[in-house]
Amino acid sequence: MQEIKIFCPATIANISCGFDVLGVALESVGDEMVVRKIAKNGIYITKLEGQELPMETLQNVAGVAGLALLEKSTYTGGFEIEIRKKIKAGSGIGSSAASASGAVWAMNELLGRPFSKLELVQFAMEGERLASGVAHADNVAPALFGGFTLVRSYDPLDIVPIPSPSELYATVIHPQIEVKTSDSRKILKTTISLADGIKQWGNVGGLVAGLFTSDYALIGRSLVDHIVEPIRSMLIPGFDDVKSASLNSGALGCGISGSGPSIFAFSQGKKKAVEVADAMKKVYQHIGIDYDVHVSKINPEGIKLIHSSK
Amino acid sequence: MQEIKIFCPATIANISCGFDVLGVALESVGDEMVVRKIAKNGIYITKLEGQELPMETLQNVAGVAGLALLEKSTYTGGFEIEIRKKIKAGSGIGSSAASASGAVWAMNELLGRPFSKLELVQFAMEGERLASGVAHADNVAPALFGGFTLVRSYDPLDIVPIPSPSELYATVIHPQIEVKTSDSRKILKTTISLADGIKQWGNVGGLVAGLFTSDYALIGRSLVDHIVEPIRSMLIPGFDDVKSASLNSGALGCGISGSGPSIFAFSQGKKKAVEVADAMKKVYQHIGIDYDVHVSKINPEGIKLIHSSK
Repeated sequence: MQEIKIFCPATIANISCGFDVLGVALESVGDEMVVRKIAKNGIYITKLEGQELPMETLQNVAGVAGLALLEKSTYTGGFEIEIRKKIKAGSGIGSSAASASGAVWAMNELLGRPFSKLELVQFAMEGERLASGVAHADNVAPALFGGFTLVRSYDPLDIVPIPSPSELYATVIHPQIEVKTSDSRKILKTTISLADGIKQWGNVGGLVAGLFTSDYALIGRSLVDHIVEPIRSMLIPGFDDVKSASLNSGALGCGISGSGPSIFAFSQGKKKAVEVADAMKKVYQHIGIDYDVHVSKINPEGIKLIHSSK
Repeated sequence: MQEIKIFCPATIANISCGFDVLGVALESVGDEMVVRKIAKNGIYITKLEGQELPMETLQNVAGVAGLALLEKSTYTGGFEIEIRKKIKAGSGIGSSAASASGAVWAMNELLGRPFSKLELVQFAMEGERLASGVAHADNVAPALFGGFTLVRSYDPLDIVPIPSPSELYATVIHPQIEVKTSDSRKILKTTISLADGIKQWGNVGGLVAGLFTSDYALIGRSLVDHIVEPIRSMLIPGFDDVKSASLNSGALGCGISGSGPSIFAFSQGKKKAVEVADAMKKVYQHIGIDYDVHVSKINPEGIKLIHSSK
């Protein structure tokens, strides 16, 4: 295999109660990448469409993640990477994670899978470090493992795949405003009350149990964030109205996707997820802010092969 | 049915990462109670063996929990309760919870089950309020539901049953020292770092996932408490040595049972759980502190009927 074309999914991180630990991969939103083996050592971004992003290897998340893999590999050649971005940078649905994890997933396939998924997560995290200053795993883990993932621990890195109920759909609305990940992290307090902590880990336990038992009502009851959402939502105009509108339309729960500004909701069934999308749209139409909206099934596989050539 | 005799299990609350939300019922440690219908309205503790505890209804946790049920019932008669305590009061394995939940479970059976398990938990919590000043549910929930339970939320009360792997055994050692629940709560800080909170909810998610998938190694890796154990363990002489000894003997994890002084460990298989018990004993023999030790399978049912008579 000399060249492969892949789909790299958008991902929702945090998921209300699961700040910094939970993430989930989407089915119908994502980038495309073409990665090919070349004789010359190194990583080369040869095409980048859809977003204005740096193409120099050391300034590009796919480049940096790829170099992290190459460094641990016995392979003496290199790779060319073409990226067709469909996920907007800074939207809060794992744009950098899609590129970083796509690059290392494709390279691993082309090399005959010398690395485990956990190792690929570690390489991809180097891309996240470039993008946000923090080598977080809550977007790259679901991109690589598919479905829901829990980052139980960073030291050592421990990724726990969590199943997803077959009728679970996500609606994501991206208001066209800029919220920098670094800013949205800065405004968080470094301490929380023990009482809020107890509520939060109760909800994480409830959400994981709900996902295992396909208990949609329990999933909904657990999608509560007492700690981060009350603070970060202040950076997202219309958040409270979007949330009320989605819950009034029958969403199981609603919260900030990653560090925002995208807002996600989960619903049981596609019909409900589309109704939720309509309700969310109306809020931003009323306020007069442009938006993108996505309705997607949960993606149980993560990154997918589109085609390969010898 | 006029009278029933029941087994009321001991329970381990908190379970390392699950402070205030997780609990589990034991199979081979527990009290016995006999509860009988009488014509006279009210709750009467007619026998109390094994521990020095008040028999006046309003001073007894079974009495208070029973009255909470009676208040919501259309039944105009009353109940006599005999309690044979085998769980020592103040041991940290749910002595008050066994009595409070046993009383209401038995009464509900004798009345033809007018109340749900969730309602029984609420009645039994009134017994806990008498015992410790706080109407907590993390012992009464597993006593009534069996297996592992998660108290996802108190307002509204939401109890989530979690399955338990078939080979999971608990070892519990009770050093004969007194630690008051109220004291062990007082020394806790009211704020925690966000970083510790994230670790804690990562571990709760991991533990719940491990219990659903019977992944004993994941259960073990998740049995970590960054918040409460470092503080409360200072009240339990020999805690660090007991913990090291149990882990060195192959326990999956080890922590404080409830608010202590009992220390629990989980193991895969009875043989290992017995070896862990031996290792724990040696620590207290060396220090010169008396102890009780229990090895028990997880109890998937909770309170059990021993016999009933018409």
